[in-house]
Amino acid sequence: MVYLSNSLNRLLGELKKLPGVGEKTALRLAFHLLKSPAHVTALAESLLEVHGKVRFCSVCHGITEDDPCYICSGDRDDSIICIVEEPQDLLAIERSRAFKGRYHVLQGALSPLSGVNPADLTIAELLQRVEEKAPREVIIATSFTVEGEATALYLTRQLKPLGIRITRLAHGIPLGSDLEYVDMTTMQHAVEGRSEL
Amino acid sequence: MVYLSNSLNRLLGELKKLPGVGEKTALRLAFHLLKSPAHVTALAESLLEVHGKVRFCSVCHGITEDDPCYICSGDRDDSIICIVEEPQDLLAIERSRAFKGRYHVLQGALSPLSGVNPADLTIAELLQRVEEKAPREVIIATSFTVEGEATALYLTRQLKPLGIRITRLAHGIPLGSDLEYVDMTTMQHAVEGRSEL
Repeated sequence: MVYLSNSLNRLLGELKKLPGVGEKTALRLAFHLLKSPAHVTALAESLLEVHGKVRFCSVCHGITEDDPCYICSGDRDDSIICIVEEPQDLLAIERSRAFKGRYHVLQGALSPLSGVNPADLTIAELLQRVEEKAPREVIIATSFTVEGEATALYLTRQLKPLGIRITRLAHGIPLGSDLEYVDMTTMQHAVEGRSEL
Repeated sequence: MVYLSNSLNRLLGELKKLPGVGEKTALRLAFHLLKSPAHVTALAESLLEVHGKVRFCSVCHGITEDDPCYICSGDRDDSIICIVEEPQDLLAIERSRAFKGRYHVLQGALSPLSGVNPADLTIAELLQRVEEKAPREVIIATSFTVEGEATALYLTRQLKPLGIRITRLAHGIPLGSDLEYVDMTTMQHAVEGRSEL
């Protein structure tokens, strides 16, 4: 690395820690920021503001500024809880406007190989919440990855004895897809889960 | 946009102003930052540090913390000045270790359509510097784009009357290229500029 300036090199180092940002992108971002001083201060301030204000909701473990979060404290359907891995999954479901119940954020997925065990997730809190609130249904909306499926299986085994309805998001062909390029397993699920017209 | 938190939405807005960062990348960066509070503060601090310390060198107009910069104040060849558009171009040439002279950063390229005229660049400063220092040679290392070429042409006209040698970086085929995929104009330049073995 050619020397530029200590503070700039430090910024490049910090930028390179971001996901998907390598040497070239870090340089591009840094030089963009050097050209707009107002943006630098606004970005730095909003980073510090987020750092100071954002925390986890004590009910659903999603991210929020006020505890409990606006979903947990809002007027929603108490009889259904949707379990997601990360706050951004909650966001994706909220965007769809298809769900009006409560959420529970696990803050990860089980992954014994990476050392993520049930105690590292908010599973104990979930079980306690389900026992206390006795919802009619629980939707397990973990990812359709190996870790997500393993987490779903583990949660099913934990929740089944409580005698509530447990569902999983539908598998199928995404909108706008060309059937030609749909992978085999998705196509199998789409055929098995076909609906009456 | 689904509501998350005021401070997080503000951070997303700031991140989206970065080049190449859209809605999804901003979310990915923000959630990464939420998971590593130490990184948030380090990034914010280094942004503010850069904002406070980095400025333009009064000699070459590149970026620096100390004025003049380490290249302008260093032991380099005074008889040759390399003219580049942006500080990152200076960096790319420094990385090659092929140049031991001084630099002059124009801080842009002529682009009448975008309202960038000679007065917006450091051209007056360049001409004054060339007259005072009387270098043996000037390398015009502006980009090989329409704007860069126009700037090179303009500079050539301005510098010619001063009676110094004016050169431009060599066009040709980049290392590791498959000849099949080299564009027509680059190939023309490569053939015209062929060298004796």
